[in-house]
Formats: sequence, C-alpha cells, structure tokens
Amino acid sequence: MDNILRVDMGAEGGPQFSEEPLGDYAGLGGRIMTSTVVGKEVDPLCHPLSAENKLVIAPGLLSGSTAVMSGRISVGCKSPLTGTIKESNAGGQGAQVMARLGYAAIILEGKPKDDKLYKLLINKDGVKIETADELKLLGNYDTVEKLIDQYGDKITCISIGSAGERKMSAASIAITDMEVRPTRHCGRGGTGAVMGSKGLKAIVLDDTDCSMRPPKDPDAFKTANKAFVAGLKKHPVTGEGLPAYGTNILTNVINEAGGYPARNFQSGQFEGASKISGETQAELEKSRGGKATHGCHRGCIIRCSGTFLDKNGNFLTKQPEYETVWAHGGNCGIDDLDAIALIDRLDDDYGVDTIEMGATVAVAMEAGLAEFGDAEAAINLVKEVGKGSHLGRILGNGAAVTGQVFGVERVPVVKGQALPAYDPRSVQGIGVTYATSTMGADHTAGYAVTANILGVGGKVDPLKPDGQIELSRNLQVATAAVDSTGMCLFIAFALLDQPETFQALIDMLNAFYGLNLTADDVTAMGQKVLKIEREFNIKAGFTKEHDRLPAFFKKEKLPPHNVVFDVKDEELDQFYNF
Amino acid sequence: MDNILRVDMGAEGGPQFSEEPLGDYAGLGGRIMTSTVVGKEVDPLCHPLSAENKLVIAPGLLSGSTAVMSGRISVGCKSPLTGTIKESNAGGQGAQVMARLGYAAIILEGKPKDDKLYKLLINKDGVKIETADELKLLGNYDTVEKLIDQYGDKITCISIGSAGERKMSAASIAITDMEVRPTRHCGRGGTGAVMGSKGLKAIVLDDTDCSMRPPKDPDAFKTANKAFVAGLKKHPVTGEGLPAYGTNILTNVINEAGGYPARNFQSGQFEGASKISGETQAELEKSRGGKATHGCHRGCIIRCSGTFLDKNGNFLTKQPEYETVWAHGGNCGIDDLDAIALIDRLDDDYGVDTIEMGATVAVAMEAGLAEFGDAEAAINLVKEVGKGSHLGRILGNGAAVTGQVFGVERVPVVKGQALPAYDPRSVQGIGVTYATSTMGADHTAGYAVTANILGVGGKVDPLKPDGQIELSRNLQVATAAVDSTGMCLFIAFALLDQPETFQALIDMLNAFYGLNLTADDVTAMGQKVLKIEREFNIKAGFTKEHDRLPAFFKKEKLPPHNVVFDVKDEELDQFYNF
Repeated sequence: MDNILRVDMGAEGGPQFSEEPLGDYAGLGGRIMTSTVVGKEVDPLCHPLSAENKLVIAPGLLSGSTAVMSGRISVGCKSPLTGTIKESNAGGQGAQVMARLGYAAIILEGKPKDDKLYKLLINKDGVKIETADELKLLGNYDTVEKLIDQYGDKITCISIGSAGERKMSAASIAITDMEVRPTRHCGRGGTGAVMGSKGLKAIVLDDTDCSMRPPKDPDAFKTANKAFVAGLKKHPVTGEGLPAYGTNILTNVINEAGGYPARNFQSGQFEGASKISGETQAELEKSRGGKATHGCHRGCIIRCSGTFLDKNGNFLTKQPEYETVWAHGGNCGIDDLDAIALIDRLDDDYGVDTIEMGATVAVAMEAGLAEFGDAEAAINLVKEVGKGSHLGRILGNGAAVTGQVFGVERVPVVKGQALPAYDPRSVQGIGVTYATSTMGADHTAGYAVTANILGVGGKVDPLKPDGQIELSRNLQVATAAVDSTGMCLFIAFALLDQPETFQALIDMLNAFYGLNLTADDVTAMGQKVLKIEREFNIKAGFTKEHDRLPAFFKKEKLPPHNVVFDVKDEELDQFYNF
Repeated sequence: MDNILRVDMGAEGGPQFSEEPLGDYAGLGGRIMTSTVVGKEVDPLCHPLSAENKLVIAPGLLSGSTAVMSGRISVGCKSPLTGTIKESNAGGQGAQVMARLGYAAIILEGKPKDDKLYKLLINKDGVKIETADELKLLGNYDTVEKLIDQYGDKITCISIGSAGERKMSAASIAITDMEVRPTRHCGRGGTGAVMGSKGLKAIVLDDTDCSMRPPKDPDAFKTANKAFVAGLKKHPVTGEGLPAYGTNILTNVINEAGGYPARNFQSGQFEGASKISGETQAELEKSRGGKATHGCHRGCIIRCSGTFLDKNGNFLTKQPEYETVWAHGGNCGIDDLDAIALIDRLDDDYGVDTIEMGATVAVAMEAGLAEFGDAEAAINLVKEVGKGSHLGRILGNGAAVTGQVFGVERVPVVKGQALPAYDPRSVQGIGVTYATSTMGADHTAGYAVTANILGVGGKVDPLKPDGQIELSRNLQVATAAVDSTGMCLFIAFALLDQPETFQALIDMLNAFYGLNLTADDVTAMGQKVLKIEREFNIKAGFTKEHDRLPAFFKKEKLPPHNVVFDVKDEELDQFYNF
C-alpha cells in the first residue's frame, strides 16, 4: 500500500493511469483515506455525475495483513443520492487483494468523452485499461462470470450492474467474495452511479504471487492479533449470535423491542417477523444444504455470512442480511423468505442497495403501486429496475425520488437516503444517528442499537431522548475510526464491552505501523474523519436543518409503544460540538 | 378585502371554513400577504404536501379597484418543487373578482381525511364547500366548462388539472381570463400540487352584484390612475411593443443578443428563431382570425395577450408567451409554432408550468428520449404527463427530477426550479437573479434583461459581471413591491424609465388607502418581502451554497459570445446585504 493509482477516465484518446507516492495521504486507509481525498480534491458543489466528481477506493489500514477481520473496502465520492460526501464500505475480497497489490487508493477521475465502457485490470505485472463493451448492461453475476472466463477464478472483481451504468442513485458497487460471487456491496449512497458515470464497468484484481503485507513488529503484531481473536470469540454477539444466525438474528430481537419498522414505518412490530427471522432462515438454509455460517473474506472469524439455496438446492444468493430481510420483508409487509432471497439476488445482480430498494418498494406500496404484503408485486417492481423501464428508473433512484414522483408524503429519508431497519421513535439513539450522520440516514454510522436494545456498551433507554446524543456521538466517532482500519464493524460489539479487545486493536495498529497510538489518538482520528466530512457537507450547502428526521416521525405515534421521536432539535444541534 | 377566508380541508366530517378579520395581516396584499402568512404560519421543514403546509391566495393591494393593470393574483406556500417559500402570480380575472368579493386572502389548511375532491364556491351570498368528484382528473378546460354549465358564465375559476391532483411538482394553478378560459397560470413552483394535496379542485368565484372597491380619496385616485395610464401609453415597450406582438416580441431581440438558450442551453442563438418570433406569431394569428392584442383581465391597457386559432380557425390556446415559445421551441430545437401552441394548450389543460415543462422536455432530449427538434416527439412526451404514466409522472415533476431519473448532468435548475429563457452567461444580470432569488430560478423575480439587453432603466453590459449584483438587487426589491400591489409586472418598464409613472403608482396607493407612502417606503416594502422569504428559506435549510448556478454555466462557454457565467460566488454572497 505504498502507492496511489490515479485513473483519468476523461483523458484525450481514452483513459490514462498514473501511479504516485502517497504524499499527503500517507498513513491513511479506508474511510479516512476516501473522505480526505474527496474533501481535498472534489468541489462540494459539483454535479455528482460530472467529470469533477471522483471515486476513491481504499482498503483499510490493516487490510492485506494477517489481521483477522480486516477485509473492509471503502468507496468514497460525492453522493448522487444525498449530495453529501459518501463513504460506503463492504466486505468480500477486495480490500485484502487491493492492499496486497500495493495500492492504498484508486482514484477515478474525469469522464470518458465517448460512450465506451471500460475495465481496469490489476495484477502483479501492472495495470491495464481495456474497453469492456462486451459487458454492457450485464448484471453483476454475468459480468463476473465473463471476467472469470477471461482472467481465471483467482480474480477479485469490483463491478457495477445495469443500475450503475444507468446512473441510478441507488446503484451499488459489488465486491466478490471468496467464491468469486458479487455478493458484497458498497450499497449506500449511489456510488455505483458515480462509477457508471466514469464509464468503468469493473476492476479486476489478481493478487497471485503477491505477499501478505508485513508488520513492522511481527511478534507484537502476532500477539495482539491473538488477543483480538480471543476477545471476539469470547463476546456473545461476535462469538455466538452472529456466527450461528448471521445479522438476521436481529429480526426477533428488534421486533420484540417494538423497534421493527413494519409497512413503511407504520408500526414498530411485524406479525410475520418469526417467519423471516434469522433462526427460521438458518434452519431453512441448512435444510436445503446451504450454509448458515460462512466468512465473506479471508481472515474473517465471525463468519456471519452464509449461502441461500433455492428450493431445488441451487445457489440463489448469499444469506440475506437483516437489513435486507427487513427492507424487502417486514417493511413491505412480506413474510416470505424465498421471495426476499430472490429480491436480494436481483438487487445484487442489478447492483442496487437492498436497503434503499426495500424502502423504495414500501414507498411505492404507500403510493398504491402494489399492496403491502404482495411478494409477487414486489418482485415485479424490482425487476423493472433491471429492465431500466421508466418505472424502474424511478425506483432505482431511491425512496426520495419515488416519493416525489408519486406525491407521497410519508417518505422515510434523511438527506435523501432511506432509513434502515430500526424505527427512530422506539430506538431514539439510532434516530440521532440517522439525523446527524454526515452520510444521510445510516445505521452503521453510529449503531446506537447496541446500548438502546442489545445491552452492549452500556444501557440507554431507547424510548427516551436522554443520553442519546452522547451515545450516538461516541459511536459515530468510534465508527469513523474503525471504518478507517479496514476492520469489519462487527468487531465493535466486543470492543465496546471489552477494553482489552479494544487495546488489542490499537496494539495491532501500533505493531503494524511502528506507532504509539493511544485510545485518545483513535478517538481523535474518528473525530477528524467526521470533521472532514461535515466540512464537505457544509460547503455543499447542508445545515443543521438537514440534520432532522422527516416530520412524520415527530407527529405519528408508533405502536406498540406509542411514542414519537423526542430528541429536540436544539439537542441535535449540539451533536458536532466536539 | 376586509376579511380572510380560512378553509380547513382536514376538519372532522369534511372541510370547514371560517371568516376572520385581517388582524396582523391588515394592509397586506399579493406577495407581501402570501409570504407573510406562509412565513408566520408554515413550518419551513414541513413536507410541502403535508397537512402542515398552507396555500395562500391573495389579490394585490389595488386589485378590485378601478386601477388599471391591477389584476395579478398571488399564490403562496412551501413549494414542492424547490422546498423554498413560493409566490407565484398570474393575471386573469381572479384577483379583481376575489377582491370585490371582499377577501384579502384565502388560506387553505390541512388535508382531507378521505380521498374526496372538493370545490369552493364564493359569491355575494357567501361561501360553500361541496364535493367535486365529478371533476376528478379532468383537465382545466373540461373542469371550467362543467363549472360554467353549473354556475353560469359569469364565474371566474381558480382550478387545477390532472397534474395538480397527481401532486406533480410542476403543477400550476389556472385562473380564467375574461372569456372564462383557464389560460392564465400561477405556473412556477408546483403550487398546483399543494392545492391537489389539499383535495381542492376548484374555487368558483362570482362577483355579480359586488361593487368596485372604493378609494379613500376618489379624486386623487382618479388623477393618479390617469397619469399612470398616460405613462404606460407613452413608453415604447408598454405602449407599442407588448400590445403589438405580446411577450414573444422578445424572441428576435434575445436571440440577436446571443442570450437565447437553444437546445438545453447549448447555444445562445437558435437558427429557427425567426420562425417562432412574435412578429411571425402575430401574423399567423391574425391570418387565422385570432387576436394578437387582447387583455387577460378587465382593466388591462397593455393588452399583451392574444388568442391562437388552429389551422381550421378554432380556438386552440391563448397566444403562447415568449417563455413558453422558448421553452417548448428553441430550447428543444423546435421551430414550429403550431406544435408549440398545441403543447401550450396541453400544458394549460393538464395544469403544468410551461417553463418547467419545456425545460424538462429538453432535459429528456438530452437524456436521449427524443431528438432535439422533433416536435412530434415533444408533443408525445407532454401527453404522457396528461396520462399520468410513469414517464409522465417523471416529467411532470420537472427538470431536476427528470435529470436525476435519467442520470443527466446538464440540468439547468437553481433550487430545483428550471431556468427561464435567458442564458445567464450572456445575460449575467439575470444569472444573478436566478442564483439569488428566494424562489429558485425565476426571471420575473428581478428582470435584469431590462438594463442588460433592452436598454430600459439604464445600461449594464450583459457579458460582464460588473454591476449585475446591484442591478438584480434593485430589481428584486422593486419587483417584490410591485408583486404586492396586484399590478402586472410589465408596468415596470415604464416605472424604470419614467419617474413620474412610478410616482403615479405611489399616488394611487396613497389615494386608495389614505396613506403617505414615499418611494423609500415602497423600497422598504420590497426589502421586507425578500427578508421574510429569505428567513423562511434559511429555516428550511437553504444557504449561500444554494445561491449558485449549476456548475456547467461556469465551465461551458456559450456561443456566440463564448462566455461563461462570471459573477463570483463572493459577490453573490453580498446580494442580501441590505
């Protein structure tokens, strides 16, 4: 990770690349890399699809090393969905492979002068850019299959589906997993549309004959890594819950707590929850010969992912995540796991964010395009996105656009991005995160569900406003730091409850880079990330008035607790006082 | 105009109305009335289609009197197109009739609990609200025809077409003219969608047996009115140009100046301009027995409107205005007056803003949905709006949404509202108005074309940034005042060049209300309006970063002058320093 690969997609005579040393960007990785580059190099008022926007792809600080859990790759740009800065990260093999190939960042710039589609090929021998018109409008699955045919099955692909090519604001960027399937996605914020606007269909990485990144102090690194592994194994969430049932273990938990947004946030509980819970899902997967426990990248020891086979025992999709099962399930009144899994596959194939798409289908249902609970209709709506029909283009641009086009008032978005699977009225800490995050509504930005519901990292009453700002702030700062390390955010469960596991992570960073960071330095890094992002957003025209939930969360009482979102605007305005 | 009529569309058991004295709103009219009420009563962060938004309809201060030109009616709300405060005004009979019926404002609040459509009936005997499901999804023409059948041909209608019922963000509110045709529109900003969200299809006004509003000092009023008339007759624009050719006299003038945005702002001149100019149009109209000179409301002496007959000599639409002829003509590469007139009729019938729709069709052409210059295709695109198809819903929500849905970068909007018929690069004063207006891009907000191109009210080089801020500021302040009087903005040509005509307007206001206003008081009134509006927008989350033109106006040079918009951001930021 000693170089930056800069690709000018708009160069005369076709795309050109150049390599450069890290310079000002030395010592950065993941989110702090993408947000620093975007903050420094992108005009906050540029059009997100213009040549002036840049797409920055960066492995985390520990990616490519033997550190467990270090497989998150960050993608950053100005978002076409929110208009804010965006960092969206995913698992899969991308981070590890890119890091071993020596790149701390790929920066895509400009915009092709022609209509051609390109692919970027990187292996130990160097970099090539070739046209890729043979991949035009292919789904991610077909795209990857063709690339494997051509470049062998040792590759890792970073690609967009038809949605990205069509520059839909809900378009994702797919990262292949250990089985070279495009199942892991930088989902949020329409990063796929930016990649599409740059005419890049895929990045093909092959780290054959590349070495593991060596730590400065191998022994200390090994010791710290070992302690880190022990910590993760010991914690009930990372050691038991997530491995056994994946993220979907949350369905029953959140539903029980009355925080599960059913039918476009009309209720906090869904009567069909048990039919789509993680427990039911794991049982179904196993009964068909799928896997309920599986890692999405080499070095994962939590192994919360899995594989979902169809009724005939054929691979359909990766185990749908909790957010996906909620978005296309309870949020649309749907309790059919097969239908949800099929939609998950379609979303991954077209390359759209499952959260945004589920929220969008629910808004379309509210607009009367389908009945809540009609799985067949939901599937057909999503298929329109793949067709690129006029309806599909509306839906593929997300919940806010769909709401405007169909004149719907109840549209659950903040800064244009759909709310995820926790109702902010009965999980008020996550409501603070939705409102204040630099990313638009994003649960991963500061996962206050921990202390609000799960009893991890302390306890804060989820139904009351008290303490939520501080809770969300601490989590958002910590998350910004974790997102920079390349570590999967799920390590946070153990970090929050076990100081020694947090220390092990710091020890790994220190041993790897020969540093002497303290916990305060890590906090400072997280704060710095948020400040860079906030600064970009302010220059892009965002104010405290955008740090608000849609009005209906303050006036409609959510059953069963019959609460509204009660954190005062003045309190939200204190969020960035650090 | 001694009362306010407040209608709660969301009352239990169906809409309820109440009358109240003017109270705090005494002495207000037109824009200063609508913006004061919206500023005071509407939460800037509410959803524009929610019960919390209000639609305020207000005649001007001099409407309903014998003052010539006093027929403008203002409509205000939070705009679903821009998210800002909105005042959109129109001619027709609405202002005069409503004023004589005694209402200084109608304030529509709430939202029906059911799906019913309503109409509001007002005559000398009082107010009634009735269901209007028989008018569901009718165009404005059929709506008005049915209302005439029921209530006679002495009525004036304020109505929405299918676009307003479908809550499209480009939906207008139609006002009938002297022939009881729905030809005059509060076009900009989607006020029709707000009326639609309140379930109100039409307001039927009948001022039979109502008196002209009496001035406090009838003699002084008569004298001032006479001087005012003389001033308008004397000025070449209001006395000759506008009467002879209507607003479309501008096509040749603006095209000649290189300020005519052709093909979605790709060039500043259109080779087909002469085929769609006001001169050609007037000739065509007269050859078919239409009228090139005609007033849109009683008391108009400029008479810039007209009637456009089809090839068979049947009424098709009112004489299309310059902005319309540009939007659906040169801006789409179309030089066919019959096609443009047909689209004008369709726009009026569906109830959409012709400027927004033309800009939207051009963006759709840029997206590849049709070729520039293809009139047939343009007509078909607009017809989709009437059908309410998915494509029609996209287009009916305006240029910004259409641009996002189809992934287009070159979208000429400010604050979500399409730029009108003057390119800001070669008419830099109007660029300042587009950027800074509280309304989003709006030429009427501060018509700097006067000094930039027409040599009215001084001269300021249109191709240079110098002096444009001051020019636009003075005009925006003056316009806000004129928009409050009920006077047609076209009086401004005479006011700018003839101090005695400006004085005559002040004399009329003083004689009518028994006041002693000076020119400074009028300026203060204009400033107050802008400050109220700006304040609302700030609370709605707008910042100086929203007072910007789209980036492409700063990087693409406009032929034939090969200029970019050159007014610096720092200068734009000085606009509100008054």
